[in-house]
Amino acid sequence: MGGKHKGGKDGGPPARRLSDLLRLTPGEAVDLAAHDPRATPGGPRGKAAGRAATAALAEPLGGLQERLYAASTAGDTRRVLLVLQGMDTSGKDGTVKHVIGLFNPAGCRIRSFKEPTREELGHSFLWRVRRALPQPGEIGIFNRSHYEDVLVARVHDLVGHREIRRRYGQINRFERSLTDRGTTVVKVFLHISREEQRKRLLARLDTPEKHWKFSEGDLADRALWPDFHRAYETALTRCGTDAAPWYLVPADRKWYRDWAVSTLLRERLEALDPRYPPAGFDVAAAREQLLALG
Amino acid sequence: MGGKHKGGKDGGPPARRLSDLLRLTPGEAVDLAAHDPRATPGGPRGKAAGRAATAALAEPLGGLQERLYAASTAGDTRRVLLVLQGMDTSGKDGTVKHVIGLFNPAGCRIRSFKEPTREELGHSFLWRVRRALPQPGEIGIFNRSHYEDVLVARVHDLVGHREIRRRYGQINRFERSLTDRGTTVVKVFLHISREEQRKRLLARLDTPEKHWKFSEGDLADRALWPDFHRAYETALTRCGTDAAPWYLVPADRKWYRDWAVSTLLRERLEALDPRYPPAGFDVAAAREQLLALG
Repeated sequence: MGGKHKGGKDGGPPARRLSDLLRLTPGEAVDLAAHDPRATPGGPRGKAAGRAATAALAEPLGGLQERLYAASTAGDTRRVLLVLQGMDTSGKDGTVKHVIGLFNPAGCRIRSFKEPTREELGHSFLWRVRRALPQPGEIGIFNRSHYEDVLVARVHDLVGHREIRRRYGQINRFERSLTDRGTTVVKVFLHISREEQRKRLLARLDTPEKHWKFSEGDLADRALWPDFHRAYETALTRCGTDAAPWYLVPADRKWYRDWAVSTLLRERLEALDPRYPPAGFDVAAAREQLLALG
Repeated sequence: MGGKHKGGKDGGPPARRLSDLLRLTPGEAVDLAAHDPRATPGGPRGKAAGRAATAALAEPLGGLQERLYAASTAGDTRRVLLVLQGMDTSGKDGTVKHVIGLFNPAGCRIRSFKEPTREELGHSFLWRVRRALPQPGEIGIFNRSHYEDVLVARVHDLVGHREIRRRYGQINRFERSLTDRGTTVVKVFLHISREEQRKRLLARLDTPEKHWKFSEGDLADRALWPDFHRAYETALTRCGTDAAPWYLVPADRKWYRDWAVSTLLRERLEALDPRYPPAGFDVAAAREQLLALG
C-alpha cells in the first residue's frame, strides 16, 4: 500500500482497525497510483483463509444488524449507508451479492443508480438519492451514487466545470446532514488495476452467460481510464471529510475486497454499539396473561 | 397432511413436485383443521437433512435468479412475487431471512406491510401494494400483504361485511392482472398450531433479546385465534385461483418451512425457465477493440 494509510508503518504499534488502515485521510490529496490494487492490507493470508473469514462474519454482522433494527423499534434513529463506487468491473455488484448477502435482506435497502431517467433529470442530482436513503435501523446500500454526478458527468462533459465544482460542496453538505441525523456513511472506493479490468472485460466477452453484463460503453469508458482516475482523485480528495471519509479497498483480489468491506461494516456497526431495547410492557403480566389464554 | 393435497395418496405414482403437494385446490373449501402443522410432506428426513438441503438450494436459486434478471435486461418482463401470510409467530420474518437470504439481495424487493399509515388509509387498500410490486427480473417479497385487509380488517371489524366480500373479488382481479402481465404470484400460508404459537410467544417473553418482537396486541390476537382461522379459511378459499393458487406450508418445524418455501420458489422459477439473452452487440468486434485498447 502507499503511504497514505495510517498506522503501524514506522515500527509503531500495529493498527488495530481496518478502517484506520483503509481510510483516506481527509484533507490530503489522493494519488491512486500510490495504492496497489493487488494489496491485502490487514487481511487474512490468502484466498481460502479470506473466504472463510468472510463467511465467519455472517454471524456477528447478523447480530449487529438485528440489534440496530431492534433499537429502531424503540426510537433509535441510527442507520448505516454503504456507498460503493469504482470503475466498471471493479466488483460493485459482486460486493452487494457477497457482502450484503451476509445480512438479513429484510433490513437492507439496496439501490442501484443507473443513467438518470427523464424524471430524475428534471430534479437536482441529489433528488433521486434522497429518495433511496435507509430508514432508521436499516442498512442502505448505494451501488453507484451521487458521485456519478461528479465522475461520469465530468468525464463526459455532461455539465460545465463550474457546476461540477459546485457539486463537491453540495455533496459535502448533503452527507454532513446525513451524519448529523444519525446515518453512518461508509464510502468505499473499489480500486482495481487497468490490467484487472482488461481481464474481467475479456472474461465477459468470452463467456456467453456474461454477455448481458457487457456494454459497448464499457470500452468507450476504458479508453477514458486516465480521465476517470483524475475525476476520482478529485472527488476522493474534495469529498473526503471527517464526517464521511472515503475508504480505499484494493479490489483486484475479490476475496480481499469482500473481506475488507464486510470488516469495515462490522467495525462501523460495532462503534455504533446498538442495543436491544428494554420491554415497553409488563413482562410478568404478559406472561401470566399468555398462560391464562391456554 | 389432510386429504386436500393432490398426488401420490392412493397408491398412484408419487407426486413429483412439491408445488402439487402443497397447492390448495382452487374452488375447494379450505379446512385448516385437516392440515397437520407438524407434517413434512415431500420433505427431507429430519432437521439436519432439511437444513443441508435448503443450504444446497442457494446455488440453483442464485443461478435461476441471475438468469431471470439477465433476461429482463433484454426485455423479458417476467418476475416473481412471493406473498407470505400466517398467524403471528408463524415465521414470516424467519422465512425472509433464511429463504430470501439464499438469493442475491440486489434482485429482491422486500416489503413488510404494517398497520396502514394515514397516507395509505387515504387510498384504496391495494394502493400501497401496487407501489411495492417487483419490477421485471426481480423477486418481490411481501411480508404480510393485501390479505391483511380481509383478515385483520374482518376480525377487528375495521370495515363492514359487504366491503370485505367486495375485496375478495378485487383481490382476484388484481392478482389476475399481475399474472397476465408476467408476474408469477406464489402465495404461501405458513400454517402453525395453536400450541406452537404459545411456545413461540413464551420464548419471546422469556428472552430479553426478543422482547422487542413482542407486542401486547399479540395476546389480543391470540385470544381471537378461531376468528382468524375462519377469516383465513375464507380468504384461502375465495382467493385461491388457477392464476394465483395458495400453497399451504406446515410451519411448526422451521427447517421444513424454509426447505418448502425455497423448493416452491425453485420449482416456479424452473417453470419460467429464464434464459441468458444473446449478446446485443458484435462480440468479435468488441473483443478486437478491447485488445487494441491495451
